[in-house]
Amino acid sequence: MTYFSAVDIITTKRDNGVLSDDGITWILDSYVRGDVAEEQMSALLMAVFFNGLSERELNTWTDRMIQSGERLDLGGLSRPTVDKHSTGGVGDKISLILAPLVAACGAAVPQLSGRGLGHTGGTLDKLESIPGWRANLSNDEIRAQLDSVGAVICAAGQGLVPVDRKLYALRDVTATVASVPLISSSIMSKKIAEGTHALVVDVKVGRGAFIKSIAQARELATTMVRLGSAHGVATTAQLTSMNAPLGRNVGNALEVRESIDVLQGRGPSDVRALTLALARIMVELVGIDVDPETKLDDGSGFEVYQRMIRAQGGDPDATLPVAAYRDDVVSNEDGVVQSIDALDVGIAAWRLGAGRARKEDPVSAAAGVVCLIREGEAITKGQPMFELHADDETHLQQGRDAIADAVVVSEQSVNAEPLLLARITN
Amino acid sequence: MTYFSAVDIITTKRDNGVLSDDGITWILDSYVRGDVAEEQMSALLMAVFFNGLSERELNTWTDRMIQSGERLDLGGLSRPTVDKHSTGGVGDKISLILAPLVAACGAAVPQLSGRGLGHTGGTLDKLESIPGWRANLSNDEIRAQLDSVGAVICAAGQGLVPVDRKLYALRDVTATVASVPLISSSIMSKKIAEGTHALVVDVKVGRGAFIKSIAQARELATTMVRLGSAHGVATTAQLTSMNAPLGRNVGNALEVRESIDVLQGRGPSDVRALTLALARIMVELVGIDVDPETKLDDGSGFEVYQRMIRAQGGDPDATLPVAAYRDDVVSNEDGVVQSIDALDVGIAAWRLGAGRARKEDPVSAAAGVVCLIREGEAITKGQPMFELHADDETHLQQGRDAIADAVVVSEQSVNAEPLLLARITN
Repeated sequence: MTYFSAVDIITTKRDNGVLSDDGITWILDSYVRGDVAEEQMSALLMAVFFNGLSERELNTWTDRMIQSGERLDLGGLSRPTVDKHSTGGVGDKISLILAPLVAACGAAVPQLSGRGLGHTGGTLDKLESIPGWRANLSNDEIRAQLDSVGAVICAAGQGLVPVDRKLYALRDVTATVASVPLISSSIMSKKIAEGTHALVVDVKVGRGAFIKSIAQARELATTMVRLGSAHGVATTAQLTSMNAPLGRNVGNALEVRESIDVLQGRGPSDVRALTLALARIMVELVGIDVDPETKLDDGSGFEVYQRMIRAQGGDPDATLPVAAYRDDVVSNEDGVVQSIDALDVGIAAWRLGAGRARKEDPVSAAAGVVCLIREGEAITKGQPMFELHADDETHLQQGRDAIADAVVVSEQSVNAEPLLLARITN
Repeated sequence: MTYFSAVDIITTKRDNGVLSDDGITWILDSYVRGDVAEEQMSALLMAVFFNGLSERELNTWTDRMIQSGERLDLGGLSRPTVDKHSTGGVGDKISLILAPLVAACGAAVPQLSGRGLGHTGGTLDKLESIPGWRANLSNDEIRAQLDSVGAVICAAGQGLVPVDRKLYALRDVTATVASVPLISSSIMSKKIAEGTHALVVDVKVGRGAFIKSIAQARELATTMVRLGSAHGVATTAQLTSMNAPLGRNVGNALEVRESIDVLQGRGPSDVRALTLALARIMVELVGIDVDPETKLDDGSGFEVYQRMIRAQGGDPDATLPVAAYRDDVVSNEDGVVQSIDALDVGIAAWRLGAGRARKEDPVSAAAGVVCLIREGEAITKGQPMFELHADDETHLQQGRDAIADAVVVSEQSVNAEPLLLARITN
C-alpha cells in the first residue's frame, strides 16, 4: 500500500483540494489502526466541516467506513428488505409502529438502531421499557426473525462499521457533528452495511431537530439519497417538520404506549399520518402493491408488533413501568397556543430522566412528558398543558424548569403547519 | 473561575463567533493542565485557521500564552533592550552579525533563539559549531552578559511560554502552522515574555520562506506590529525577499564563517545590506543616534562578537569544523542565471546534514552548501555553481539530488530584485 502523510492529507482538505481514493483509504485505515492520531483526525474533520467532500470523495469515504467492519448478508430472504432511518426528533416513536406495519404489508424490515443521546430519544431505549425485551441479537437471529416475523428492531452489532463509533465519539467532543458529509457517511455506511435493499430517510427539520433550515435538510437529504443509490440501496428522503413534538407522549414507556394506541387504530393523528406516509414510500420502494392503511385498520400491523416483541423475549401484554411522581404544568394565560417548542420538551423529558448526557448513563423507563395541548388550540388560564412523569422529586423539578417557556400563547389564530415538507428521490 | 465547555468554544469559533476573554483563558489554561484534549485543541486551531482571531481575541490569546510561564525582567539594565526575530529563511545568519553590531552601537540585544527545523537553519545550531560555545544560560547569566557585553544569543528557557511548545508540536502534526494569528501569537508571546523593550521582525517572503506572497507577509507583519505595541514592545516589521539564498554560505559552520567575514568588512553585499538595514531600525527604535555602518567599519561590531562568544564559553579564534567530503555542482549550459531557488538550496543543505527533520535529530556542524553564483551573473557550461559539503558520501549524494534543479539559466538578462520590500510600523 502507498504511504501517505497525515499532514499532507489534512493540508489538501484544508486548502479545499480533492483527496485521492488512496489517500482516503489510507487515512481511515490508519486511524482505525491508531497510526493516525485523534488530534490529526479531528483537524481533518474540521477541515471537512469547512470545505466539504466531493461526491466521489464521499463515496470513497463511506466505502472505506463500511469496509472497516462486517456486512450483514440479507440475500436469500423470502421478502424484499426495506428500512427507515430518522435523523432524530422529539416524540419520534415512528419506528415502533412502522416496522411491524410494513412487515404486515409483505416486506422485511431490518431496523438496526441506536440509543438516544441528549434531547432525542433512542428506539432501543423505548423498547427496553417492555419487560423481557432484549436489544442484542446475533446475525443469525436477525435473519431468522426477518423471515418468520418480517420485522426486527435491534442493536447494531459491534462489528458493523466500527470506525463510525470511533469517529462519532471524536466528532462529539470536537464540534464536528453538524457536517453534511460526516452525518451522511455515518448514517449511510451503517444502513448499507446492514444489507437493506431500500431505505427511506426521515430528515427532521425545525426547533427540535439537529437541522434547523429546509435548505440544510435538502442538502443532507440529497447527499444521502445519492450515497444510497451509488451503493445499490434504493433511497428516498422525506423532509418532515420537527418544530412541535411528534404525538403527545415523549419518554420511553410513554412512547411505547402511544405506539400501541396507533397500532390499535387510536392515537394522535400526526403520528398516524407520518407513519402511513413513510410506510407508503417503503412499500413503493420494494414494489409491493398494498396500501399500509388497510394493514393498520385490520389489526395486522399490531399483530406483527406483538410477534416482533415476543420474538425478542418481550411480553407485549405486560404492564409498562409507571412513574412514581407526576405533576401538571398549567397555562398562565388565556389564548391560542401559537407554538410548542419541541427542543424544550425534549430537554424536559431528558431532565426528567428519559434521556442521557453520556452514552454510558442509564435512562428511566417511566419518565417523560405528556403534551395535553396542540398548536392552534384555545387554552385558558390554569388549564394543564403538560403532564410530567419522573422517578423522583429532583428530576421532576428539573423537568419543570426546562419546560417553563416551551409554550407561546397569544390571541392570534394559528395556521396549521404541514408535517410533510418535501420528498427527495434520485 | 467560570466553567466553560470546550465544545461550545470550538463551536463558537467554527461558526465565526467571537471568543470571550474568559473563554480563551479557560481553554488555554485547561489545555496546559491536560483537561482539554489534544483533539479538541486541534479542532479549535483548525477553526482559527479558517476564521481567524479578532484583534482583541488575539491580544487575550497571546497574554494567556505569556502567563503560562515566567517572564524575564530586563528592567534595571544600563542599556535599552532591542531584539530581532526572523520568520526563517535560507542562509539567514543575520543574527550572528546583527546582535553584536547593535550592542556596539550602545543597545542591549537579548536574543533568545530556537533551533532549526526542516529547510531553515537555527541560530543556535550555527553557533554550536564553535568549539566550547554553550546555548543554555540562566536568567542571571543573561542579565549579566547583557550588562557587560551588550549582546546574548542563547536558548529560550523551558519556563518561557511553555504552552507554545505544546501548541507548536500539535500544530506541526495537524496542518495548522500556517495561520497568521497562530504564527503571530507564537512569535510575539516569546518576545514579549523575554522582556525586550523594542523589536524588529524580519518577515521573509518568497520561494525559500514559509510565506510566499507579499499580501500574506503584510498581514502577518501588521498583526505582529499591533500585538507588540499592545504589549508595550515598540515593534517594526521589515518585509524582505527570500527567493534566492541570503549570502553565499548555507550550513552551520559555513554561516559562522560568512558572518565573521561580514563583521570584518568583507562578505556578501546582501548580507551586509540587510544587517545594516535591520540595525538602523533597531537603534532608531531605542533612540540611539549612531550609524551602525561606522561600528561595522571600525571593527567594534566584531570585537563585541568575540566577547559575546567568549562569554558563553566559545573560542572565536578556534578552527571551525570542515567537511570530510566536498563536491562541485556544475552548470550544464551557457547563459545568464535567472534564479536560484532558496527552497531547493535549503533542502539540499538539510539533506547534506545541516538540518533536521525532527527536533531530537542531531545536525552536522560542517555540512552545507556554498553558492558560487548569483542571480543575473553570466555562466558557462561546466562552471561550478555550488560547492557541497557533507560528512559522508550518502549525504553528499542526497544533497546533489536535492539541488539538481535549483538554478534556471537562459539567454535573457535579469533585473536585480530588491532585497528590502516594505517596512510596517505602528
